[in-house]
Amino acid sequence: VTKKPVVGFLVGSKSDMKYIQKGLRLLEEFGIPYDLQVISAHRTPDRAAQYAQDAESAGLKIIIAAAGSAAHLAGAIAAHTTLPVIGVPIPSSDLKGLDSLFSTVQMPAGIPVATMAIGEAGATNAAILAAEILALSDSTLARKLRRYRDELAKKAGSGHPV
Amino acid sequence: VTKKPVVGFLVGSKSDMKYIQKGLRLLEEFGIPYDLQVISAHRTPDRAAQYAQDAESAGLKIIIAAAGSAAHLAGAIAAHTTLPVIGVPIPSSDLKGLDSLFSTVQMPAGIPVATMAIGEAGATNAAILAAEILALSDSTLARKLRRYRDELAKKAGSGHPV
Amino acid sequence: VTKKPVVGFLVGSKSDMKYIQKGLRLLEEFGIPYDLQVISAHRTPDRAAQYAQDAESAGLKIIIAAAGSAAHLAGAIAAHTTLPVIGVPIPSSDLKGLDSLFSTVQMPAGIPVATMAIGEAGATNAAILAAEILALSDSTLARKLRRYRDELAKKAGSGHPV
Amino acid sequence: VTKKPVVGFLVGSKSDMKYIQKGLRLLEEFGIPYDLQVISAHRTPDRAAQYAQDAESAGLKIIIAAAGSAAHLAGAIAAHTTLPVIGVPIPSSDLKGLDSLFSTVQMPAGIPVATMAIGEAGATNAAILAAEILALSDSTLARKLRRYRDELAKKAGSGHPV
Amino acid sequence: VTKKPVVGFLVGSKSDMKYIQKGLRLLEEFGIPYDLQVISAHRTPDRAAQYAQDAESAGLKIIIAAAGSAAHLAGAIAAHTTLPVIGVPIPSSDLKGLDSLFSTVQMPAGIPVATMAIGEAGATNAAILAAEILALSDSTLARKLRRYRDELAKKAGSGHPV
Amino acid sequence: VTKKPVVGFLVGSKSDMKYIQKGLRLLEEFGIPYDLQVISAHRTPDRAAQYAQDAESAGLKIIIAAAGSAAHLAGAIAAHTTLPVIGVPIPSSDLKGLDSLFSTVQMPAGIPVATMAIGEAGATNAAILAAEILALSDSTLARKLRRYRDELAKKAGSGHPV
Amino acid sequence: VTKKPVVGFLVGSKSDMKYIQKGLRLLEEFGIPYDLQVISAHRTPDRAAQYAQDAESAGLKIIIAAAGSAAHLAGAIAAHTTLPVIGVPIPSSDLKGLDSLFSTVQMPAGIPVATMAIGEAGATNAAILAAEILALSDSTLARKLRRYRDELAKKAGSGHPV
Amino acid sequence: VTKKPVVGFLVGSKSDMKYIQKGLRLLEEFGIPYDLQVISAHRTPDRAAQYAQDAESAGLKIIIAAAGSAAHLAGAIAAHTTLPVIGVPIPSSDLKGLDSLFSTVQMPAGIPVATMAIGEAGATNAAILAAEILALSDSTLARKLRRYRDELAKKAGSGHPV
Repeated sequence: VTKKPVVGFLVGSKSDMKYIQKGLRLLEEFGIPYDLQVISAHRTPDRAAQYAQDAESAGLKIIIAAAGSAAHLAGAIAAHTTLPVIGVPIPSSDLKGLDSLFSTVQMPAGIPVATMAIGEAGATNAAILAAEILALSDSTLARKLRRYRDELAKKAGSGHPV
Repeated sequence: VTKKPVVGFLVGSKSDMKYIQKGLRLLEEFGIPYDLQVISAHRTPDRAAQYAQDAESAGLKIIIAAAGSAAHLAGAIAAHTTLPVIGVPIPSSDLKGLDSLFSTVQMPAGIPVATMAIGEAGATNAAILAAEILALSDSTLARKLRRYRDELAKKAGSGHPV
Repeated sequence: VTKKPVVGFLVGSKSDMKYIQKGLRLLEEFGIPYDLQVISAHRTPDRAAQYAQDAESAGLKIIIAAAGSAAHLAGAIAAHTTLPVIGVPIPSSDLKGLDSLFSTVQMPAGIPVATMAIGEAGATNAAILAAEILALSDSTLARKLRRYRDELAKKAGSGHPV
Repeated sequence: VTKKPVVGFLVGSKSDMKYIQKGLRLLEEFGIPYDLQVISAHRTPDRAAQYAQDAESAGLKIIIAAAGSAAHLAGAIAAHTTLPVIGVPIPSSDLKGLDSLFSTVQMPAGIPVATMAIGEAGATNAAILAAEILALSDSTLARKLRRYRDELAKKAGSGHPV
Repeated sequence: VTKKPVVGFLVGSKSDMKYIQKGLRLLEEFGIPYDLQVISAHRTPDRAAQYAQDAESAGLKIIIAAAGSAAHLAGAIAAHTTLPVIGVPIPSSDLKGLDSLFSTVQMPAGIPVATMAIGEAGATNAAILAAEILALSDSTLARKLRRYRDELAKKAGSGHPV
Repeated sequence: VTKKPVVGFLVGSKSDMKYIQKGLRLLEEFGIPYDLQVISAHRTPDRAAQYAQDAESAGLKIIIAAAGSAAHLAGAIAAHTTLPVIGVPIPSSDLKGLDSLFSTVQMPAGIPVATMAIGEAGATNAAILAAEILALSDSTLARKLRRYRDELAKKAGSGHPV
Repeated sequence: VTKKPVVGFLVGSKSDMKYIQKGLRLLEEFGIPYDLQVISAHRTPDRAAQYAQDAESAGLKIIIAAAGSAAHLAGAIAAHTTLPVIGVPIPSSDLKGLDSLFSTVQMPAGIPVATMAIGEAGATNAAILAAEILALSDSTLARKLRRYRDELAKKAGSGHPV
Repeated sequence: VTKKPVVGFLVGSKSDMKYIQKGLRLLEEFGIPYDLQVISAHRTPDRAAQYAQDAESAGLKIIIAAAGSAAHLAGAIAAHTTLPVIGVPIPSSDLKGLDSLFSTVQMPAGIPVATMAIGEAGATNAAILAAEILALSDSTLARKLRRYRDELAKKAGSGHPV
C-alpha cells in the first residue's frame, strides 16, 4: 500500500523540476511520502489557496514550495495555513535567484516562510528540514537523519584529497 | 453625490499610508474617484483575492497595490483579475525597497504588474499612470493630464535656479 | 485591409529583437495591430521624441519601449506623451539587466513608466498589459484576455507533473 | 513550576537583543518555554557546539539563532544537531543585513537553516515558525496559532483606513 | 564685464542643488564661467534637447549634468551634442544613487557620458575634469590645476594626524 | 611619417585586450594617434606613475585606462597627472565588472576619473570621449565626430526592423 | 626528507579544488611545506575545530581556508586559534561568490579573517600572503618573494602588447 | 624610550580616523608600537609609494591601510612592498562601504591585500591580525592574544542575558 503523503512539494513551474530532483530522492530515502504538484501562485492562485487550506485535513504536515522570479508561491501558501511552509528560491531569471530569494525570505511579521538556499542545494535542504521536523515525533526517522549526517561527514572527506 | 470608484488603491499595511498621500491627492485633483483599502496578501489573502475577483463587476477599471518587503500584494491581485494592476514597491525593510521592487516587478510571463519607482515617487506615478489609462476614453481627463504635465514643466524650472 | 496600429512597440537596438518575439506573437493573437520600430533614445533621440509626440494623433493608444544598459528609451518616450508607456528592461549588458531595470523603473514623480520584468517575460507581459488596458473599452478583447488566462492556468499544470 | 524549555533562542551578541523582543513575547503568549542565551559562533565556538550537541537530550525541540555580519551562528548550530534550526539575519553592519542574510541562508546541501526575514520581523516569524512546528503534535498550540492568525487578519485592517 | 560661459552645469531638479555647491565654487576658483540651469530630462525634455543642440554655437565647451533616480539627463544631453558631457549621479532615491550611477554610466557604444562618483564628491570632480579638459588649450588654467593639486596634497596631511 | 601619439591607451593586463579592439579601431578611424601599453597599477606601479608623470611632456593630451577587479589603474594614473583620465571597467572577475566599476568611478573629491560603461561599450566610448575632447580645438575632428554620429543614427535603424 | 607543513590549506569541498591549484603550485615554488585537507565547517565541524585547535602544536603557522556559499570555514577555524587565518571566497553558488565574500570578510570585532579576492586569484594571493608572513622571519623566502614580484612585473608587460 | 614602530597604520583621510580608534587602542594594549599616518593613494601618491618602499628598512613588519570609496590605498601600498598589507574598507560613501570592500579585496593574482570587515570592526580586526602575525615570532605577544581571546569569550556572555 502507498502511504498517505505528509509533505506537499510544490513547484511554481514545470521548468523548476530540474532543481528539486535531489530533494525528492532524499524524501524517498527517508521514507517520507510526498505529494508533488505544479502550482503557480500567479497562474493558478485558487489551486494554491485551496491546496494550502486543505493541506492539514488531507494529512499533510509540511509544505515545500519552490519558485523563481517574483517567487510568491511559498508566501501565498503560508498565507492560507498554519502548517510549517518551507520556501526554495529558484534561480530561473536574469537576476540569478536574488529576486527569488528576496521574494521568498522577506516575509512580513506574522507569516513565516522557512527559506532555504537558492537552487538545488536549497531544494535538497528543504527535504532534510522536513525530515528534521517530522523526526521530532518519529524516532526511526531521527535515527535515519543522524545516519545521513554521519555519511555526509564521511563523504565530505577525511584527510588529503588525493 | 459621490461618484463610484474606478480605481482601487490598496496598501499592504497601515504603515505604508505615508508613502501614498501625494498619489491620493493627485487622483482627487484629476477627479478620479477611488476606493482605498488596507489589504495584506499574507495576512488577509482571501480579502485580497475577493477584492480582485469583484473589482470588475464593482466598476473598477484599475487597481493600484503598494506593499513592502516580500511585496506580493500587486502580484496576488493581478493573479485574480485581467484589469490593469499597478504595483508600488514600498521601502519599509532593511533592504530599502530593493526586495519590494524585485518582488513586484519580476512577474512571470502571463501575469503583468505595471511597476512604479520605489516609494512616494512611485505612488504618485501610479496615480498618473491610472489617469493616463483612463484618459484613453475620457477626453476631459486627457486635457487635465496635459495641463498637469505643462505645470510640471513650469515648476521644474526655467532658467537660473536662483 | 490592415488595421491601423494602436500599440507602438519600440526596441532600442536590433539586437533586442530576440527578447520581444513572444510579445509580438501575443499582440497578434489578441488581434492588436502594432507598429514595430527600432528607435534609440541615444542614437536617434529626435526620432524618439517625434514618435512620442506624434503617437496620439497617429492613433496609438499605448507605447511599449524595450531597451538595455542605461535604458532611457521608455523614459524618453514618456517625457513626450501622456499616453501610457510600458518599459521592458533588456538584459544585454554585463550587469544582466539590473542596470536596465533601475534606468527604466526609477522614474521621477510626474512621468510614469509601467515597468515589466527583465527580458522575455517582461516583453510578453508588456503585450498582455497593453491588451488589459485596451480591453477596458473593448469587450471582445476582454473576453480574449480571460480565455488566455484560463489557458495559462491549464498549461501551468493540474496535478502530478509526470 | 516552570516548564522545561523546548526552544533554544540564541543571539550572537547582546546588542542583537533589541531585534528579538517581539519574538520572545510571542513565544510567551503561545506558552512555549524557551531558553535564552548569548552565544557567539566566533567568540564562544565551544559553547555553541556544546549547546547544539546537548540540545536534544536537554529536551529542546527547536533552536533559533539570530546573528549579524558574517552570521555563522545558525549554521554552526545546525552543523552539530539534527534538530530544526531557524536562522534570523540581524542588520547590524554597514551592509544592513544583506551579509547576514547570505551567511545564514546560503547553506550547503546537507545542513539546512530555516532562514527568516532580516531583523525584527524575522525574529518574530522565527517564534511563529517554532510554534507551527511544535503545533504538529500539540493541538492546543495549533488552536492558539489559528487564533493568532485570525487576530492578525483583523488587525491588518478591514475596509477604509481612516 | 562677465565672461561668456564655457561650461553648462545642469541639475535635474532644484533639490539636487545641495550636492553641487562645492563644484560650482571650484569652477569660480578656476575662473571658469558657467551657465547653471535646472533642466529635467523627463519634465522638460525639449529644453534639454534644445540646450544640448544650442550648446556649441552658444560657446559652451563642456556640459555637466547632475541627476538622480533613473538619471537620464546626462545621456539625453549627450544624445544631442558631440561636446564632452560629464554625468554626476545624485543619491536622491531609496537606492542611494546606485540607480543614478547605473543610469548615467551604462551608456551604449556611440554616446559617451564621462561619469563621476555618486554625490558631492562627483560634482566636485566634474568641475575639476572640466578644468582639466579646458586646460588642454589654456596654460594659465593648467597652472591653476597643478597648484590646486599641490594644495590638495598638502591638505591631505603630512605626517601624524594629531 | 607616424604622428606623435596624443592619447595613451593603457590596459591593466594582456587579457583585457579583447575588450578594447573596437575602441582602438575608432581612434584610428578618427585619425587620432595613440600609444598602447600594458601597465598594471599593482604589478608595475612605478611604470604607471612614470607614464602618468611623463605624459604631458611626451605630448599626450588624454589617458585612457582599462582594468578589471580592484581596478585601480585609472585612479593611479589620475593621481599623477592633471590631464583628463578616462577609466574603463573591465568585467574580468566573478563580480562581472561591478567591482571594476566601483573601483574606477568612486574617486574621492579632487582626482576625477571619467568613467565609461563596463566592457567593450565602455572602451568604445572612451575613444569617442577622447575624440570629443580633442575636437574642442580641432575642427576637422569635430566634423568627423558629427559624421560618425550621423552614421550611428542611420545604422540604429529607420523604420520597421525587417 | 619531507619538511613539516607550516601552512594548513583547507577547502570546504572537493569541488573547490580546481580554484586552488595555482595557489598550491606557488607554495611549492616558494618551498613552503603545506598540509592540504578537505574539511567542511558544516559537514565535519568537529574536524574543523580540532584541526584549528591542534594547528599551533602541530607546527602550523598559518591556515588558509577556501569555501563557497555561506562560507563559514575560515571563520570557524579562526574561532579556534590565534594563528593568522586567510579566507578565500569560492564562487560556487548562483550568487557568484558574493555570498562567500560576505560570509568570509564580515567577521565581528575580535576574530579576524584575512580575506582574499573571490576565486582563483584569491587562492593564489592566499599563498603569497602566507609567504609574506613567513618571510618576516625567513630572509631566503623574503628574497624569493621579491624575485617573484620582479618576474610578475616583467610578465605584466613592458611596452606595446604586440 | 619609545620603541620603534613595527606596524604602519595608514588612513586615506582624516575623516576616516573615527573608524580606527579601537584598533589603535588594541595595538597599544598589545604593546605593539605603530606609526600612524594620513596618506592618500590619490592625493599623495608619491608619499604612499615612498612609505611602502621604505617600510621594510624602517623596521616595519606590517602595514594596515584604511580607506573609503574607490579605496586604492591598501592596493597601492601592497604594490610597492612584499610586507603583509592589511586593508580596511571604510563606509564613507553613499554605497556604505560596498565600493570600498570591492576596491580593497578584489586584488589581482600576485599582489594580496588581507581584507577586513567594513568599518570599525574591520579596523579592530586589522590590529588583531597584525598581532597574530607578529606573535608567530613573539611568544609574549602570543600569550597576550590568547588572553585577549579568553576575555572576549567571557564578555560575549555566559548564560542568560539578563
